[in-house]
Amino acid sequence: MLQIKRIPHGHKLHGKNKNFVAAAVAPSRTCSVDDHDEESSETLALTKGQYNQLLALLHCKDTSSAMATMSVTQPSPSSQHVTNSKVFVSQEGKKEEMSSTAGQVIRCKAAVAWEAGKPLVIEEVEVAPPQKKEVRLKILYTSLCHTDLCFWEANKGQNTVFPRILGHEAGAIVESIGEGVTDLAPGDHVLPVFTGECKECAHCKSEVSNMCSLLRINTDRGVMIHDEKSRFSIKGKPIYHFLGTSTFSQYTVVHVGCVAKINPLAPLDKVCVLSCGISTGLGATLNVAKPEKGSTVAVFGLGAVGLAAAEGARIAGASRIIGVDRTASRFLPAKKFGVTEFVNPKDYDKPVQDVLAEMTNGGVDRSIECTGNVDAMISAFECVHDGWGVAVLVGVPNKDAVFKTPPINFLNERTLKGTFFGNYKPRSDIPSVVEKYMNKELEVEKFLTHEVSFSEINKAFDYMLKGEGIRCIIRMEG
Amino acid sequence: MLQIKRIPHGHKLHGKNKNFVAAAVAPSRTCSVDDHDEESSETLALTKGQYNQLLALLHCKDTSSAMATMSVTQPSPSSQHVTNSKVFVSQEGKKEEMSSTAGQVIRCKAAVAWEAGKPLVIEEVEVAPPQKKEVRLKILYTSLCHTDLCFWEANKGQNTVFPRILGHEAGAIVESIGEGVTDLAPGDHVLPVFTGECKECAHCKSEVSNMCSLLRINTDRGVMIHDEKSRFSIKGKPIYHFLGTSTFSQYTVVHVGCVAKINPLAPLDKVCVLSCGISTGLGATLNVAKPEKGSTVAVFGLGAVGLAAAEGARIAGASRIIGVDRTASRFLPAKKFGVTEFVNPKDYDKPVQDVLAEMTNGGVDRSIECTGNVDAMISAFECVHDGWGVAVLVGVPNKDAVFKTPPINFLNERTLKGTFFGNYKPRSDIPSVVEKYMNKELEVEKFLTHEVSFSEINKAFDYMLKGEGIRCIIRMEG
Repeated sequence: MLQIKRIPHGHKLHGKNKNFVAAAVAPSRTCSVDDHDEESSETLALTKGQYNQLLALLHCKDTSSAMATMSVTQPSPSSQHVTNSKVFVSQEGKKEEMSSTAGQVIRCKAAVAWEAGKPLVIEEVEVAPPQKKEVRLKILYTSLCHTDLCFWEANKGQNTVFPRILGHEAGAIVESIGEGVTDLAPGDHVLPVFTGECKECAHCKSEVSNMCSLLRINTDRGVMIHDEKSRFSIKGKPIYHFLGTSTFSQYTVVHVGCVAKINPLAPLDKVCVLSCGISTGLGATLNVAKPEKGSTVAVFGLGAVGLAAAEGARIAGASRIIGVDRTASRFLPAKKFGVTEFVNPKDYDKPVQDVLAEMTNGGVDRSIECTGNVDAMISAFECVHDGWGVAVLVGVPNKDAVFKTPPINFLNERTLKGTFFGNYKPRSDIPSVVEKYMNKELEVEKFLTHEVSFSEINKAFDYMLKGEGIRCIIRMEG
Repeated sequence: MLQIKRIPHGHKLHGKNKNFVAAAVAPSRTCSVDDHDEESSETLALTKGQYNQLLALLHCKDTSSAMATMSVTQPSPSSQHVTNSKVFVSQEGKKEEMSSTAGQVIRCKAAVAWEAGKPLVIEEVEVAPPQKKEVRLKILYTSLCHTDLCFWEANKGQNTVFPRILGHEAGAIVESIGEGVTDLAPGDHVLPVFTGECKECAHCKSEVSNMCSLLRINTDRGVMIHDEKSRFSIKGKPIYHFLGTSTFSQYTVVHVGCVAKINPLAPLDKVCVLSCGISTGLGATLNVAKPEKGSTVAVFGLGAVGLAAAEGARIAGASRIIGVDRTASRFLPAKKFGVTEFVNPKDYDKPVQDVLAEMTNGGVDRSIECTGNVDAMISAFECVHDGWGVAVLVGVPNKDAVFKTPPINFLNERTLKGTFFGNYKPRSDIPSVVEKYMNKELEVEKFLTHEVSFSEINKAFDYMLKGEGIRCIIRMEG
């Protein structure tokens, strides 16, 4: 049995390394608390399991590091939770502001897409407090992903919900929480995710699926699930959400099931890109294709997702990683991601699957398709070796696309699988992707080629439209 | 260290339970040998591993059961190997004939397909001795599989190698072995298999593939690999092989890589059907689809292979097994194989995949396609649940067939795999399928609906053409 002392709401604490919200102490140790109102503190008995859970929650391995990590600020009376100010101070330095906004409408800057294809406009928006099962996040860094561009262009049959706040790759801190939120608290470092994990549906209960029935990606919805209303407005007129995240705003409201709580020591200006594209490609390789050490992997499409798939193959120990792309200039940068050979289909007068089969004595062991082009999908499938080859589709196809192949290709023991978000469950698995970066297994910096201030957000769109770079980090400067 | 005594060729032994070819004894035990020429016996030292291998070879768990099993006959001087007569006597009672034929041309009866679609003719054929890496088998029981019928009809673009001896499902005993054969000996009980396992190629070395580069099924080849000649002839004119097995003959010659050595206690008139169709369906479920206990499985096509797939689902503990077939009369017999529900696509005016999705709250967990019809393949894939569904193709399609589906069906985390021979490696895995029958896990008898004598072999074709029954056993009566 271990003990923990919990300080009541509104209690004033100060100092460092000796003040804490929750002090987890082994029975044999004395816990020194600089508490001006000792009588009002409560003592909770924790089992060993609960204690370990607490340490995990604090991302600390033992009591002393937990105590070193925890130092708290003075919460305002309106705050529902005591916040972990150490994190706040290091990243923001505005702890008072953060804790005093709970329950209030926040006015902040957001980049609004007023209509399709037109530059975003930085506006002052009102962000309503989080409702049931929602959290309000302060976005510190966001990045531009191709899906934002696609729904901003809205010229290929996409839903045209405007005005809208785009953005879905971001690093954030929980500002306040709504009713019924139990596993997040203000101050938590998080990545909002464009798809969710309710933890209650058949998909969430399945060991393999991440396609939550309740919170699965919905590109058409512009409002919150709870009340079908937007939390954003300008002078009372609603501005719509995008992918349930809308991270191109200094504050946003997200369903708690779409928020991954991560290691607070992880730099948000780096790991923000792990909330969509990079994890998608990485997971496609590590979770779905699962190449063995020494195997040969083909990656179709060397954009951000394809490079992340290659990075996954590099991490898995593939001996040959063959990049397939119609843009020759992508090869040199791809080398950093472990790509060892490059095939440009334009250079051959036969199908690229035949080229790959010749290069690899019958086919590659694994292939990952990251373009969304249906011909590339067919090639990616037909280039895998019979007997054991596995192809994984990642790229999103046009609605009218049809995959075609002679069925004998399957009967010769090839496997074709598709993946969504690299098969990662947002809440359960994304924290571990962040850890992969923290322990230097995953090299995130290679993906970060540009950085702009929030006021320059349209530059990020320009870079992507020109095919320049991989990921552009946008500093929210709030 | 354990010891074994090996009796030289031609040595006279008699009696039961105390005479033996190979007496494996633990060092602490005395081995009593009723040997009239003690001096000429040799003693070999075996390691523990070799000793265990010997026991496995004898299908015995310990020394005493090995000694009880082994009792030998008097080999003729021409015999290359001393034979295990206990097995011979129990199944055949003609031990002298068996051992005297080694190295000789054997004249026996075979059912010859002289031309496409015409009744087979029982002829006296000459069967040459096995050459390098070949064994000659005495076929005791064979059965008719749809592939025999297909190549006998030869009216859909199949290769038309005639005259030919068809047949590839059989139970047999090794009569003699050719040069370089080390892991089979006369008297071994075996199942010849239409595809092989060389144990040296990349496929054989792969943990998952059974598509041996050297011995993979070849429907066009009518001769042996070693010298590209046939071992069958009538008055000097060659009669061609089929699938490397040609089991519609009392004796046949097979590459050693296409022979699975099985438990000699297994009844060959039952387990003969495990050398093709039943193992194919069973393995498709158990090795490839791998349904979890309590899951829902759809089986398309309720012929022998489909029923075996259902049997696999029953063994795996599926809670719902939905049989899909256009022939309503197949439902009642299918119940014995665990099929719980039946869907006839003809009864609906919408795609059967939609019917199945409605029946199962979004789709089945696993589906297995055993018809070869490409529309059924598409339905079998599209009826599996998103997030975790796996469809397995087993049925062989027409050469011009094209599998088509919108790629989003893959991206929603469905998997499509094909299998060949249920992913069983013939030599490594088929013995374990026989054991599944021996330990009453797999119910083979349910598949055996007819039995005919060899002279009535054309009746078996009639039954299959009429769609009567599942498997017809043909007694070779030799």
